[in-house]
Amino acid sequence: MNRAELEAAPPGVVRQAIREKRWQGVTKRLALGYHQANVTIVPKALAFDFMRFCFGNPKALPLLDVCEPGNPCPPRAAPQADLRTDVGGYLILRRGKPVERVDTLVPYWRDDHVAFLTGCNLSLDRVMLESGIPLPHLVDEAAFPAQYRSSIPCVPAGPFAGPLVVSLRPVDNERVVPLIELTSRFPLSHGAPVHIGDPAQIGIPDLSQVDWGRRNVVGAGQTPMFWACGITVQAVALASGIEEIIVHAPGNMFVTDMLVRELSAAAASPSPGAR
Amino acid sequence: MNRAELEAAPPGVVRQAIREKRWQGVTKRLALGYHQANVTIVPKALAFDFMRFCFGNPKALPLLDVCEPGNPCPPRAAPQADLRTDVGGYLILRRGKPVERVDTLVPYWRDDHVAFLTGCNLSLDRVMLESGIPLPHLVDEAAFPAQYRSSIPCVPAGPFAGPLVVSLRPVDNERVVPLIELTSRFPLSHGAPVHIGDPAQIGIPDLSQVDWGRRNVVGAGQTPMFWACGITVQAVALASGIEEIIVHAPGNMFVTDMLVRELSAAAASPSPGAR
Repeated sequence: MNRAELEAAPPGVVRQAIREKRWQGVTKRLALGYHQANVTIVPKALAFDFMRFCFGNPKALPLLDVCEPGNPCPPRAAPQADLRTDVGGYLILRRGKPVERVDTLVPYWRDDHVAFLTGCNLSLDRVMLESGIPLPHLVDEAAFPAQYRSSIPCVPAGPFAGPLVVSLRPVDNERVVPLIELTSRFPLSHGAPVHIGDPAQIGIPDLSQVDWGRRNVVGAGQTPMFWACGITVQAVALASGIEEIIVHAPGNMFVTDMLVRELSAAAASPSPGAR
Repeated sequence: MNRAELEAAPPGVVRQAIREKRWQGVTKRLALGYHQANVTIVPKALAFDFMRFCFGNPKALPLLDVCEPGNPCPPRAAPQADLRTDVGGYLILRRGKPVERVDTLVPYWRDDHVAFLTGCNLSLDRVMLESGIPLPHLVDEAAFPAQYRSSIPCVPAGPFAGPLVVSLRPVDNERVVPLIELTSRFPLSHGAPVHIGDPAQIGIPDLSQVDWGRRNVVGAGQTPMFWACGITVQAVALASGIEEIIVHAPGNMFVTDMLVRELSAAAASPSPGAR
């Protein structure tokens, strides 16, 4: 399959292609218009602390869904999906070290695992395309956003503590204000940037030293804009030696059934509540 | 002290008056413009399930803050406050029965208690006054909203399961649409109504049989409008026999330092995140 086929496909078709290994690349531009999600799986003993960590750091970790303990199905985000198989790759980290990259979680899943889904900037690919914002990863097939550890500390919760990771987008100067206005309307996809301009002010001495993703060059007449990023979970797991944490492989997001446009206005009530 | 003095007072002054028992009534119209909150305290063993219950039922239980286990201070909502003393009264429920009403939680607080704050419709008193919406409890000193158990089930989480409680406001017919528009902009204060019109459709056979609060008569030319209500926690504790749960006494809300107007637009990111 090629990316163009999956751009206009509904989320269930994209997840099936991923589950059957017919798609193994990053998920940028896939199922355009639907929320893509960071996946974090922790043992139940850490689940309350991790949920508080999401609540305390909503720009990095806007919570889209949380599963019942032992159940790999996200009830709100994609009630037909299985988080053990519907992601292109997973990283298993133990005591602050990455120990394995695997293609499926079926042999690893336990009854005490709790899965969380948090928002992702790739969810805005359609908004950016429709708004004519030429972000590098939307223009160049090989490009991907660049992510950096910043000097901004997360609000800690239990054992979860560490630096905020930010994603860089180089933006033409005249688009900086409109892009702040635009992204602030999508709090479930990281909302407004946490910083614009000089990277050194948030502890990034050299933009060429990328921590995750690929380098995005900031051209003449452009401003570096930095958004909070879901990879923060990995940075925190590494920094604080979390006993066990499983995340999606970088760029291999989980594609949800949740429409970005339906949720932007009612961020705190992504479902109609009890109805 | 009288209500008029505390209407324009900042939240810290209102909390001090409550702590020193100089104010012992309901908190309607106090510290106008600041979020008032439902208080729920559960043992740590139930905290993750309760937090998931809030996430699954955001219209009834929009989460404003969650405390660290054993710490009665809400870090985001009022970092100088103490939830053991700064509420006018508390109800202790055990195994689905109300067992005691107390004025302070100091003798009852344990290291494994976890406190949650969720949004409340009294937070919108100032918005309603400024918008000229003559809700009964804002016009008549003795009046208070009426609440009913509905037939709408909450989305369950662990042991938390039961009916959604709704609050009634009788509204002049021509204000129904504007009031839906207005309240939908405040998801942290229950957002848009869950039902308008015939109460029987949501399992309320007789509006004169109030479950909590005081009767509000629906006059000629008025429509009954129903919003999700934080008292849902009590109804659920009673219905499902939760081991231990402590809530504020009805109408005795916790007054936070959070401005309603600052949060309405950025509901999912009430704090600036990691900054």
